[in-house]
Amino acid sequence: MTVEPLRFEDEALLILDQRALPGEERWIRCESPAEVAECIRTLAVRGAPAIGIAAAYGMALAGGEVAAADVSRAASGGARAGGDLAAAADLLRSARPTAVNLAWAVDQVLASGDPLACARRLHREQDAADRRLAALGAERFRQGDRALTHCNAGALATAGYGTAGGVLRAAWERGCLAQVWVDETRPLNQGARLTTWELERAGIPHRLVTDSSAGTLMARGLVDRIVVGADRIAANGDVANKVGTYPLAVLAERHGVPFYVAAPVSTIDPDTPDGASIPIEERDPSELGAGVPAVNFAFDVTPAELVTAIVTEAGVLEPPYEEAIAGVTPR
Amino acid sequence: MTVEPLRFEDEALLILDQRALPGEERWIRCESPAEVAECIRTLAVRGAPAIGIAAAYGMALAGGEVAAADVSRAASGGARAGGDLAAAADLLRSARPTAVNLAWAVDQVLASGDPLACARRLHREQDAADRRLAALGAERFRQGDRALTHCNAGALATAGYGTAGGVLRAAWERGCLAQVWVDETRPLNQGARLTTWELERAGIPHRLVTDSSAGTLMARGLVDRIVVGADRIAANGDVANKVGTYPLAVLAERHGVPFYVAAPVSTIDPDTPDGASIPIEERDPSELGAGVPAVNFAFDVTPAELVTAIVTEAGVLEPPYEEAIAGVTPR
Repeated sequence: MTVEPLRFEDEALLILDQRALPGEERWIRCESPAEVAECIRTLAVRGAPAIGIAAAYGMALAGGEVAAADVSRAASGGARAGGDLAAAADLLRSARPTAVNLAWAVDQVLASGDPLACARRLHREQDAADRRLAALGAERFRQGDRALTHCNAGALATAGYGTAGGVLRAAWERGCLAQVWVDETRPLNQGARLTTWELERAGIPHRLVTDSSAGTLMARGLVDRIVVGADRIAANGDVANKVGTYPLAVLAERHGVPFYVAAPVSTIDPDTPDGASIPIEERDPSELGAGVPAVNFAFDVTPAELVTAIVTEAGVLEPPYEEAIAGVTPR
Repeated sequence: MTVEPLRFEDEALLILDQRALPGEERWIRCESPAEVAECIRTLAVRGAPAIGIAAAYGMALAGGEVAAADVSRAASGGARAGGDLAAAADLLRSARPTAVNLAWAVDQVLASGDPLACARRLHREQDAADRRLAALGAERFRQGDRALTHCNAGALATAGYGTAGGVLRAAWERGCLAQVWVDETRPLNQGARLTTWELERAGIPHRLVTDSSAGTLMARGLVDRIVVGADRIAANGDVANKVGTYPLAVLAERHGVPFYVAAPVSTIDPDTPDGASIPIEERDPSELGAGVPAVNFAFDVTPAELVTAIVTEAGVLEPPYEEAIAGVTPR
C-alpha cells in the first residue's frame, strides 16, 4: 500500500504531518509558500525528494497568490508580481540547506510557464524515477538477503514509490529480501517511526535496532546489503545523508557488505564538487530531548570511495563516479 | 563532587536507582541477595565494577541470612547454611551475563571468611584502582584535548572514582581536557542521563551528541581521544562494552584517533580466550520503546587490534595484549 505524504487539491497543498506518525495521521493544509516552507523547516514533510515536491507546490501557491495579486495590483496600478514568485523561491529554497532537491525543484518551477503544472509533473516524475531506480536496485539482491537501512527513504520521503525504501519494496516483490534491519535514527527516530510503519504496511519482515547495533550485526554476518537514500550527492560521488550513514559505510567496508545509495538524479548536484562543499544542517539541540548542552548534526558525508554503487533512475552508477555522474547530469 | 551509587548501612544495601536519574535521586533498600539481584537485572545499579560490588554486598546479605538461619537451624537440628550462600552466589552471578566483575566479586566473597568485610574491601579497592588507573590514563592527555566517551563509566558505574569517567576527571584536574563529547547511548541513554549529570557536577565542559555523530565529529577533527569503559576484556585483549563501542573503534582507526579502554584488572577475564567467547546480553526489545519488532543487543565486541591501550590500575597495557594481560592477571 502506497503512502501519499502530499496532496494538492482545492488550491491547497495537504501535507501529512510526519512528526505525528505513526501514532496519528494528521493533515496540514497549506495555502501559501510560507506555510509550506514552515512545514519543510519543522519536518512535517521531510526527505529530500518530498521536500522538493512540496516546495514546487509551494511555488504553485505563490503562483496563485501572484495571479490574484496581479488582478488587484493591475486594478490599482501596482508593481508586477514576478517579485512575489522570486520571494517565494527564496523562502522555500532556504527552508533547509542540505538537500539539493529543494533548490532544484524551485528552479524547475521558475523556469516553467505554469507552476502548478510543473509541480504536478515533478510529482509524477518522482514516482516514475523511484520505480525505475527501485527496479534497478532490486536486481542487485539475491534470495534470502537481509538488508539494513537508515532513516526513512520510502514513499514518505519522496512522495513517490521511495528510493532506498523503493529498492527494498522491489526486492521484496522479486522474492529476494528476507528481512530488513531498521536503524532507529536518532534523534527524531525516522527509522523507528516511519520506516517500520511503511514496512509493516508493505508486509515486509523487519526488526528495529539502535543506531549503534550495525557493527554487531555486520560482525555476526547478519547484514547482506545496506541501502540508504541521499540528500545531496556531489559531482565526485560523495554523499550527504542522515547522520549515521557515514559510520555505516565505514563498517560496511570493513565487513565487505555492499553499500548502496539510492537517489534520483535530481539529488545529484553537479555544481557541488565534493562532500566538503555540502552545507550540513545543524538543528536545534533540543531535538535530543535531554535538556543538556548538545550538538545536533542532521547529516553527514560519506566519501565516494565507500559507496559500492549509486542507484538512480538513469542507471546504476559505479566508480569512478566523476565520469558516471557527468554522464547522467545536465551541464 | 563524588557520586556514591552504593551504601551499606543498617544491615542493608542502599542502591541509588540509576533508572530515575537525573530527574530524581531515589534509593532502594535491599535486605536480601534476591533484592540485589533484581536491582542488577533491572539496571537500578549498572556498570561492570558497580554490579560486582553490589553483588558482593548481596552476598554479605546472604551471609547475614545465613547467620540468622544457622541459629534457627542449629536450634531445630536443620541443614547447614553453606547452601544458602551458594544459592545466593548463583542468583547474583546469573543476574547479568556479560560483565565478568559480577562473577569475580562473588567468587572473592565465597573465598573469604567474612562476606561483609570482603565486600567493603572490594568497594575500597575499586575506588583505589579507579584513582590509580585514572591518573595513568590522564598522562596520555595533552592540553586542549577533546575527548569522546560512550555510555557511562564514571563513579555511578564503578562505585568508586570512575574508570573512563575517572580518566576524564583526572585529565580535567591536570588541565589537559578542553571538552567531552558524550554519546547519548541508546536505548537507555546512560550517556545523556548519567554521564552528562556526572560531568556537570564535576564542572567539566561537555556536549551531548547522538550515537551516530561520532563519524562526523572525527571527520571534522573534533575528537582527540576516545575513552570508554569495559564489561569484560578477554585474554587476547578483545573488549566487550556497551553496544556502539565497536563502531567508535572502527571510526577511530580510520581517523587516527587514539582509542583507550579504561578498566580495573577485575574486568579482565583470563579464562575467556577472545571476544567471540564473551556472552553478549540481549535485553528486552521493549527498551527501544517503539512498540515494533526489535532486537536489543546490550554490548558489542571491539577486537584488540583496534584498541590503542587498556588502562588498568596495574599499568597501561599495550599490544601485544596476550602478554601484557598475562602479566597483570592471576593464573
